[in-house]
Amino acid sequence: MANDTQTIPTLGVGMLGYAFMGKAHTNAYKTLDYIYTPPPAHARLVAIAGRDTAQVEAAARRYGYEKAVTDWHALIADPEIQVFDDGAPNSLHAEPSIAALQAGKHVICEKPLGRDAAEAKRMWEAARRASQDGIVSMCAFNYRFVPAIRLARDIIKAGRLGRIYHFRANYLQEGLADPNTPVTWRHAAETAGSGALGDLGTHIIDLARFLVGEPTTVSAAVTTFVTERPTASGGRSPVTVDDAFAAAVTFENGAIGLLEATRYAKGRRNHQVIEINGEKGSLAFNLERLNELEVYLPEEESPHDAQGFRQVLVTEHSHPFYDVWWPRGHIIGWEHTFIHEIKHFFDAIMNKRSVAPDGANFEDGYRACVVADAIKESSRTGQRIAIAY
Amino acid sequence: MANDTQTIPTLGVGMLGYAFMGKAHTNAYKTLDYIYTPPPAHARLVAIAGRDTAQVEAAARRYGYEKAVTDWHALIADPEIQVFDDGAPNSLHAEPSIAALQAGKHVICEKPLGRDAAEAKRMWEAARRASQDGIVSMCAFNYRFVPAIRLARDIIKAGRLGRIYHFRANYLQEGLADPNTPVTWRHAAETAGSGALGDLGTHIIDLARFLVGEPTTVSAAVTTFVTERPTASGGRSPVTVDDAFAAAVTFENGAIGLLEATRYAKGRRNHQVIEINGEKGSLAFNLERLNELEVYLPEEESPHDAQGFRQVLVTEHSHPFYDVWWPRGHIIGWEHTFIHEIKHFFDAIMNKRSVAPDGANFEDGYRACVVADAIKESSRTGQRIAIAY
Amino acid sequence: MANDTQTIPTLGVGMLGYAFMGKAHTNAYKTLDYIYTPPPAHARLVAIAGRDTAQVEAAARRYGYEKAVTDWHALIADPEIQVFDDGAPNSLHAEPSIAALQAGKHVICEKPLGRDAAEAKRMWEAARRASQDGIVSMCAFNYRFVPAIRLARDIIKAGRLGRIYHFRANYLQEGLADPNTPVTWRHAAETAGSGALGDLGTHIIDLARFLVGEPTTVSAAVTTFVTERPTASGGRSPVTVDDAFAAAVTFENGAIGLLEATRYAKGRRNHQVIEINGEKGSLAFNLERLNELEVYLPEEESPHDAQGFRQVLVTEHSHPFYDVWWPRGHIIGWEHTFIHEIKHFFDAIMNKRSVAPDGANFEDGYRACVVADAIKESSRTGQRIAIAY
Amino acid sequence: MANDTQTIPTLGVGMLGYAFMGKAHTNAYKTLDYIYTPPPAHARLVAIAGRDTAQVEAAARRYGYEKAVTDWHALIADPEIQVFDDGAPNSLHAEPSIAALQAGKHVICEKPLGRDAAEAKRMWEAARRASQDGIVSMCAFNYRFVPAIRLARDIIKAGRLGRIYHFRANYLQEGLADPNTPVTWRHAAETAGSGALGDLGTHIIDLARFLVGEPTTVSAAVTTFVTERPTASGGRSPVTVDDAFAAAVTFENGAIGLLEATRYAKGRRNHQVIEINGEKGSLAFNLERLNELEVYLPEEESPHDAQGFRQVLVTEHSHPFYDVWWPRGHIIGWEHTFIHEIKHFFDAIMNKRSVAPDGANFEDGYRACVVADAIKESSRTGQRIAIAY
Repeated sequence: MANDTQTIPTLGVGMLGYAFMGKAHTNAYKTLDYIYTPPPAHARLVAIAGRDTAQVEAAARRYGYEKAVTDWHALIADPEIQVFDDGAPNSLHAEPSIAALQAGKHVICEKPLGRDAAEAKRMWEAARRASQDGIVSMCAFNYRFVPAIRLARDIIKAGRLGRIYHFRANYLQEGLADPNTPVTWRHAAETAGSGALGDLGTHIIDLARFLVGEPTTVSAAVTTFVTERPTASGGRSPVTVDDAFAAAVTFENGAIGLLEATRYAKGRRNHQVIEINGEKGSLAFNLERLNELEVYLPEEESPHDAQGFRQVLVTEHSHPFYDVWWPRGHIIGWEHTFIHEIKHFFDAIMNKRSVAPDGANFEDGYRACVVADAIKESSRTGQRIAIAY
Repeated sequence: MANDTQTIPTLGVGMLGYAFMGKAHTNAYKTLDYIYTPPPAHARLVAIAGRDTAQVEAAARRYGYEKAVTDWHALIADPEIQVFDDGAPNSLHAEPSIAALQAGKHVICEKPLGRDAAEAKRMWEAARRASQDGIVSMCAFNYRFVPAIRLARDIIKAGRLGRIYHFRANYLQEGLADPNTPVTWRHAAETAGSGALGDLGTHIIDLARFLVGEPTTVSAAVTTFVTERPTASGGRSPVTVDDAFAAAVTFENGAIGLLEATRYAKGRRNHQVIEINGEKGSLAFNLERLNELEVYLPEEESPHDAQGFRQVLVTEHSHPFYDVWWPRGHIIGWEHTFIHEIKHFFDAIMNKRSVAPDGANFEDGYRACVVADAIKESSRTGQRIAIAY
Repeated sequence: MANDTQTIPTLGVGMLGYAFMGKAHTNAYKTLDYIYTPPPAHARLVAIAGRDTAQVEAAARRYGYEKAVTDWHALIADPEIQVFDDGAPNSLHAEPSIAALQAGKHVICEKPLGRDAAEAKRMWEAARRASQDGIVSMCAFNYRFVPAIRLARDIIKAGRLGRIYHFRANYLQEGLADPNTPVTWRHAAETAGSGALGDLGTHIIDLARFLVGEPTTVSAAVTTFVTERPTASGGRSPVTVDDAFAAAVTFENGAIGLLEATRYAKGRRNHQVIEINGEKGSLAFNLERLNELEVYLPEEESPHDAQGFRQVLVTEHSHPFYDVWWPRGHIIGWEHTFIHEIKHFFDAIMNKRSVAPDGANFEDGYRACVVADAIKESSRTGQRIAIAY
Repeated sequence: MANDTQTIPTLGVGMLGYAFMGKAHTNAYKTLDYIYTPPPAHARLVAIAGRDTAQVEAAARRYGYEKAVTDWHALIADPEIQVFDDGAPNSLHAEPSIAALQAGKHVICEKPLGRDAAEAKRMWEAARRASQDGIVSMCAFNYRFVPAIRLARDIIKAGRLGRIYHFRANYLQEGLADPNTPVTWRHAAETAGSGALGDLGTHIIDLARFLVGEPTTVSAAVTTFVTERPTASGGRSPVTVDDAFAAAVTFENGAIGLLEATRYAKGRRNHQVIEINGEKGSLAFNLERLNELEVYLPEEESPHDAQGFRQVLVTEHSHPFYDVWWPRGHIIGWEHTFIHEIKHFFDAIMNKRSVAPDGANFEDGYRACVVADAIKESSRTGQRIAIAY
């Protein structure tokens, strides 16, 4: 009495990458099937690709992929695969994703979409062409799928904050506060494109655009605190990406704001904090408490003698994404954002529509790279940089 | 290249109940397989039982159970089933679980184990007899499997709080604050045994025992705020269980404490808060922020000029249960407690050992019922009641 | 151009005690004069009394009292004194306060009013008799004068929580968690009457009565964790008062609750936390953040998609007591409760009216002692004790 | 038995301004006398000046100033006055303060010191000259006198954070979020110099310098959201100052940071939040909870399994400034910062030494204006501006 395969369509998935993102995405494909009834499609785990034979085979066994391959081209060539999922390091986003799109596969690609805006633009152009044949592409900005973030957006879109005055987002981690932490692919411009800027910064750039609209200028400081790090082999290697940035931003709607990301904030595990202030109210969010949204909407309260930020536990069945989960107060975790995201992606595929505007498409992925590049440029030149997509 | 079934053993699961607990347990069986590498055993979802034919068949399809049955005896009789999972209403705990144990099946049963201590005692006796044949039984007190709770226990067991002075736990929900909420099986002594006391109270009684040891006396107030409620059919039905209780408690080790549970705490979604004060430090926990533990251990800090409760995000790979999950700061949710619990249960089965002391066995389930009964008795008689197991 | 003494009346103050409470009350008398414009009366600091000649003279110089005396009878005999302020240890509450009342002086006395209910009753009787001559008496339960507490009471009295289901209050300090802390007058029944019960417990008993009404029964555990302590002289002395208590309580209005106080809660500096749950909402308070009140009033919000406890900063000029202070957000401290309290006391004196019901009179002081005695009695006998004033 | 005037010296105070700052400073002069034993000097309230005769006379009566004058020159001319306290609007800082210094009076002046750096520089030069005659001057950056801020500085100066990577400070208020709030002197460049930048921004600029050192560059966005507001008389008036700014900053020590201030953050009453991240730890502060400091110092803890930000209640007698106050946990308020500040000022006067480096002198006041001007300049030109004092 397995899942009604006669009525539920199947999408064959090819996964590139078996580490952090491979695990998170695969969990989503597997969970989707029984959390949504019915799911938009059943995910058939056709193949997984990665460089290390032993590891990719172990990953295939672990997750139940039918095949393990060491060359991503095999995923592109596989006719059983309709969905290409790119969870590889940043230097392996553009070429495989474009190839998959050209091969008529739907693509979901991790962020940052490209190592720079030029690379991302090529991907977006490929996606745009493919979309004419009903091919769906998505940039995996999963924080758009946090219930609290979606609730925030609903509140803003409904005009309940009024005119927006301020947006501020700080994405603080501490992975590199210790100068003796060894170098990885994430420290090299060649493989990663950028550092905190691409890895953490693009998340909050995307959320800024998602929540309050297009930035118009950036004025930034970008820095590398530790310019050389030990290698695994006992040597020293230069760090060629940024460690942190801080930027003052202006927005099309007249708001001003701050964007900041760092891997040097000791004690901050995954501290993505966002605050938005409008004429009629404010919102605040912290990713480490992702089930919560702080909401200040004084005009919606009466009487007016006891006003303050409401600590909203975003776990009501009426809240975004939460209806499929548990009774209220039984919180969900970080991984659930991917389940919501893949559900949205599959819905788009089955309904032949774009993932935008609720999900991020490749244009959104490209735009985040444009803003990131502008932040670098502002720091390099000492000039305020106008955003031009 | 599916999971290495030649090397990973399989346990056939029969599930009684397809609602809240059926979903949470099934999610654990399905996730276990790829989160733990290798898992202690592969869970084969053999059959699910429930009263409503259409619903149980839908549940089987949804979750991938091979069979759907409407009589739980079919699970007991099924030779493909080695593990009997009882997620049914309280009145269906004793008879099915005892039958399963007698049929040589491992049993995990939801809490409260019995509707009262006498019923729970019969279950414990059956479990004790079955254990002589290597049969493992577990009472599903899943909060023992919250990383923060386990970390709290590790700290206490290591003596880092010194002598324990205080334990206090309040389990606050708000489901029934509105007197017009209709009656369900949870409001009838016949089906539920008790109200907030069995449903919420036994969780914190178990945690009191798990964290600081055996209670010796209780002095309690138990009440039913709304004694009659509307029925679905438009009539009125009496409420025959408690709505809330408050109890002063003494412990074997000299500590005193408070236990409280209610379904009438407006604004409190799933607010299980615990605090423990010892000679050398204190701990505090809130289930709505289950990834966090507040820790005060001033003697472990030097210098002493900046002391206070530490907000510990219990998401390090060195923290209990967390090593299989995500990079730190990427929080897990409520459902994960079941994954940790079923892993522990399967480990016990495969290693032919008890789930105790880290997990709750049927004796623990029974003891929680004894304390719950004493709370009722204290309220009824106006006497302090000594706990006698 | 000093204060308009021709129009502002003067009250001569005699203060008994120059330590903690002497300082806090004196600060209030001195500040009152220029914070309220005009103040209800100008406080003339006539005399201060204490046992140690050098210390009481230093205190007089420091605070500007005109005289220093070592025998409190001198305050009673002094015709310049209209207000007798008793901030002495508990064993020096009854006799001096009664003497002052009989001498026609207005009296404000620290809590607990008496060392037990019998002693407190004699004081209340003296106050009642004196009130017939326009003499005002007050028991200094200063937490009634916290803006957040008064706001809480206003919300409850207006019916905005609906029927009250729960009251819980825990007053946690840590002064004695270390068994090597030496003995003081606070550890002896003779001088203190009781321990945490009288010192901390009466505060929350009074707040329970102030906020939700009369308790009807208590079922309690009272304990002394450390029964012997070192003396300053190197010896050992028995501790003859309680260290902590925990009590389940019922209220006249059907609510149930918990009361707890301890000096053994490591890490809790002055942690008086209160929560009240009603049919339509909830309130929560923590004395360590005394400018804040958490307010849950979902029916007063619309729409209903973003509900949660509001973090109200009780520093609006429309909030209780705050209008005389600073622009909002500029918080006040613990000492300000006394300024509000003395203002209220002086208002009552000048207007020849009782300090009740907003302030605590001697009957309130007595009632708190009755409940405290019942808690002791319940622990001693193992019985639920009915409150009988 | 009044204060030992023979042994305690007296300083005659002349106060310019009777509103917000006049009240806060006067409260400090009056309280100083009995909180510190002995105080460094007794403050004699000689005269208060203000434009409105009736109001300044009322203020004199209220606070106990001997004289009320409407021309500030009278304060300068008064030989009884040794201390000139300038709490007037920004346009009345330079001329009166310089005149007072030239007349040989010690001066404490509110911030921003000047309406721009040029004006502030003249003041600093006057102060430097006067200092040669033992005249002490102070810029009233009172947040240097918050116990938590001073504790933060002590921790940083001791090297306990290691190398500093990040400083961020946001000073959020909401006074002007509503476009219909009428215009005041604070909205005109002529009287105020700048808006949020001078009023709120200079506070956090000073704290940045106080805590982590000199800024080297700023890249900023400055804006005026509402460019015209209603007047009291029913007309409309242009707003000629900024409403908010956001700036990316670099520091001499290699740290990067963010500075932001606004009067348009709905729901934020007096929300000055600061975070500092270093190689070995982090600190966080919120002015609305000014008795608390969040401290992350993992290397100072052992074992390492329970690390997180400590919620330090900065109310120990061993903490900065707190020893004169109450038992721990009995919090102080915003006004207390002025008492600590005036104590420090009087100490400096009596000991003929500078208020720096713990207090802010006129050079600090000037430097804050330089940074504020650079922020304006950066926004105007679109260039990163190097700070040049």
